[in-house]
Amino acid sequence: MARTMNDVLQQLTATLAERKGAAADSSYVASLHESGLNKILEKVGEEATEVILAAKDAQGTGTNDALVGEVADLWFHCMVLLSHLDLSAADVLSCLAKRQGISGLDEKASRATNG
Amino acid sequence: MARTMNDVLQQLTATLAERKGAAADSSYVASLHESGLNKILEKVGEEATEVILAAKDAQGTGTNDALVGEVADLWFHCMVLLSHLDLSAADVLSCLAKRQGISGLDEKASRATNG
Amino acid sequence: MARTMNDVLQQLTATLAERKGAAADSSYVASLHESGLNKILEKVGEEATEVILAAKDAQGTGTNDALVGEVADLWFHCMVLLSHLDLSAADVLSCLAKRQGISGLDEKASRATNG
Amino acid sequence: MARTMNDVLQQLTATLAERKGAAADSSYVASLHESGLNKILEKVGEEATEVILAAKDAQGTGTNDALVGEVADLWFHCMVLLSHLDLSAADVLSCLAKRQGISGLDEKASRATNG
Repeated sequence: MARTMNDVLQQLTATLAERKGAAADSSYVASLHESGLNKILEKVGEEATEVILAAKDAQGTGTNDALVGEVADLWFHCMVLLSHLDLSAADVLSCLAKRQGISGLDEKASRATNG
Repeated sequence: MARTMNDVLQQLTATLAERKGAAADSSYVASLHESGLNKILEKVGEEATEVILAAKDAQGTGTNDALVGEVADLWFHCMVLLSHLDLSAADVLSCLAKRQGISGLDEKASRATNG
Repeated sequence: MARTMNDVLQQLTATLAERKGAAADSSYVASLHESGLNKILEKVGEEATEVILAAKDAQGTGTNDALVGEVADLWFHCMVLLSHLDLSAADVLSCLAKRQGISGLDEKASRATNG
Repeated sequence: MARTMNDVLQQLTATLAERKGAAADSSYVASLHESGLNKILEKVGEEATEVILAAKDAQGTGTNDALVGEVADLWFHCMVLLSHLDLSAADVLSCLAKRQGISGLDEKASRATNG
């Protein structure tokens, strides 16, 4: 879990921003924006249900691939939602960072380790 | 959105792993693991509903702070779920990366880094 | 499934109407109304998740009691929601009746009774 | 809200039982049973989200028609779920009746009034 994790979210944020402005028929993401907030929220609700079902199905079988895919779908649609309201994953992660109480020193140390 | 975004998820993953093994009364996360999969999935469902409500309330008002906090709650509980099933945010992000078709070279670099 | 099924929904509708106007600390239902629409919708979302989990747990075991209780919880909170917005189960059932295409005569009888 | 409310649920229960055994391509309900429990639960989750969105949209506008339709959809899919597991709305209503503590005397009185 190295720098690439960051790259993924950054690239996805950039891709989503690009598609937000594009013609509705040019991509799935553009069509979601065109359909509007309710449609995007319906997808968030659907994907949350699919995460729950996949987790129940994974329980005991040890086969977690479907679950990972459903969490990816859920996060993806959350990022479309954030983009729709001119927010991004960076806002969410800085909220998570604040809650974790990452101090300036910790951040510096963490950068040093990962750099 | 710099390298720190990565740090946040890495640190949170590490913190969650630590708390998974701890006594149930030592932290909120430990108590979720102790309660089991259904309890964790109930929280995922609850937080998804709260994202939806916060997004509807944000619409038009331009006040998005509550929404960011709810998406953070949702992602946090997804990470507890992943941890409960011995998975992590890294698995989700590598799934998102594959879907984005990160170029072959980037993927190779990523594989090298992640071992 | 005799006439009593009707009685249950009628009585519950009446009970909910009564509690809607009561002091917030007098009952659970009164406290939900006092907390407002979002709180009631959070409960609807929670109960839907619990229906899903109970159905997955029922699958294969043949023990359905918990599922019945969760569907009852979900319908109950839907009825609180309807009451909150000055609607009732009767509105929902007449919508279901229309969709079922209850024969013209039955509908006429129903209009006469409800009129 | 007279005897018809009961009729609706009884008729719908009967219709659903009939369609459960039919060929998957003969009706929407038959296709849901064919798709299996997860598909039915996905619909329950979807409809719960749509209830929440319709309630938020109804708030303030005083236009509740869409909400009534969404609750009808949610209850309908709950009834398909019950039917899938060899249960019915009657089980749910008798659970609600027990919780309301309808006594034998109350039931008799209620029957007398509605009869």
